[in-house]
Amino acid sequence: MEILTNIEDVQIKTAEWVREGKTIGFVPTMGYLHEGHERLLEEARKENDHVILSIFVNPLQFGENEDLDQYPRDEEHDTLIAKKYETDLVFLPHNETMYPRPMSMNLSVSKRADVLCGRSRPGHFEGVVTVLTKLFNICRPTRAYFGMKDAQQVAVVDALIQDFNIPVTLRRVPTVRESDGLAKSSRNVNLTSQERREAPMIQEALYLGRKQVENGTKDPIEVIKATRQFLDSRTRGKIDYIELLSYPELEPVTEINQTVILAAAVYYDRARLIDNVVFDQTGKLEIG
Amino acid sequence: MEILTNIEDVQIKTAEWVREGKTIGFVPTMGYLHEGHERLLEEARKENDHVILSIFVNPLQFGENEDLDQYPRDEEHDTLIAKKYETDLVFLPHNETMYPRPMSMNLSVSKRADVLCGRSRPGHFEGVVTVLTKLFNICRPTRAYFGMKDAQQVAVVDALIQDFNIPVTLRRVPTVRESDGLAKSSRNVNLTSQERREAPMIQEALYLGRKQVENGTKDPIEVIKATRQFLDSRTRGKIDYIELLSYPELEPVTEINQTVILAAAVYYDRARLIDNVVFDQTGKLEIG
Repeated sequence: MEILTNIEDVQIKTAEWVREGKTIGFVPTMGYLHEGHERLLEEARKENDHVILSIFVNPLQFGENEDLDQYPRDEEHDTLIAKKYETDLVFLPHNETMYPRPMSMNLSVSKRADVLCGRSRPGHFEGVVTVLTKLFNICRPTRAYFGMKDAQQVAVVDALIQDFNIPVTLRRVPTVRESDGLAKSSRNVNLTSQERREAPMIQEALYLGRKQVENGTKDPIEVIKATRQFLDSRTRGKIDYIELLSYPELEPVTEINQTVILAAAVYYDRARLIDNVVFDQTGKLEIG
Repeated sequence: MEILTNIEDVQIKTAEWVREGKTIGFVPTMGYLHEGHERLLEEARKENDHVILSIFVNPLQFGENEDLDQYPRDEEHDTLIAKKYETDLVFLPHNETMYPRPMSMNLSVSKRADVLCGRSRPGHFEGVVTVLTKLFNICRPTRAYFGMKDAQQVAVVDALIQDFNIPVTLRRVPTVRESDGLAKSSRNVNLTSQERREAPMIQEALYLGRKQVENGTKDPIEVIKATRQFLDSRTRGKIDYIELLSYPELEPVTEINQTVILAAAVYYDRARLIDNVVFDQTGKLEIG
């Protein structure tokens, strides 16, 4: 396994792989890998000749009040995980490598960005699409892997790829869960034991909402209301939002007659948890 | 020679070429090809295994008051030119192919754009970098060819490639000129015979400015003044601008101690002509 910090070295390597007709699976991350990332690496390993993992805590996607400096890092552990999944190349650039000077141009995101978590993180998805555009040009992936835990990110990346005709296939990978259904997250360790017991109710509530659609409900307001009532009565966490939107367009719907996402964010004392479920107009799960 | 109108067909073809280890030379145009374009095709043909010409009158780079509908087109002539230079593939997309739906994200250009011709064409370079980002992802060129007649465009494309680490080499091709020095342009036919006789003075004036630097002048104001005086006394055309800026950064300089561009735009009765010269601190020509 090669660990490279220099853009040109990676481009030489990936150009070589492309010339040899090899497929490249790409897993972009900010490091501090957990089982969700492992699932991405596992999928990438299965489907491609070569696997690239990038680890870069992208300053551009952090807001002014967000703790860039305190974002957890553990390169040693990450490298072990990368080896475990037989990753061929780890790209580990420095800030100055990715942003050597102020940029002359900027990407702004006008759709899919100002709902769900994007509402409270202005500029976040601008940072995400900017670094991904760079990483795609550096790593030249055949397929790129993203977890559906961040379903909004997947939707924005889908738009990025379509808008600019990027020759990469987007792979949406199901959320990895604890045995009781709680979505895996590095933030889960910040829950009190009482909160930890309640947190699986987020997924339960989302499934209850989905069930309503399976049973014939077409009205998004009704679905949101039922989901909220269920969740409110089963956890002391404070609901940040429960939203139902078309997917991947992330636009409001007045009637459920297409693929939609039902998503929730809940504040606990020292952690904000998110989860979602994507299903079609009959309530059939699209991506776990 | 293949003529393709569909993005996917081009991507299949270029992916195949890339996999075979072939180099691809790319000449993006808005069609109505003249000798400037021919020089680009000629260079591309010399240096690459395969040559792609794209012809697309990009609506995004036209301002509200600019005549998109009246932009000249002549696909038959363009196809003959493409054949003459043994072009392998002509990409000739429709508007709806390039912009099938409103985009979810947009590129804005914050540097190099609001000087020279960009000053009077707000949004123009946004349109240019957007369509080029798409075309680069579709055509996957090894090298892309641009004429130095549009030196500002070359500078903006250079920034695009750097900012997003696009794996393409930018080739700057010298301006093609008439025997009397006038830069070739499809607009030259709109000059009266009197104007046509005066128009070569634009290049003369720029060379005079460059000569001053060769003779030791470091002061950009002095160079601009001399250039303006020379030109003013030799043509009845109305000078739009004469600017001297660092190149390719296109920033104002107080002293000439790096590569600079001296550029002019002149209004004639039914044509606005532009020209430029790029030279280093000793006045040595960098690109004709």
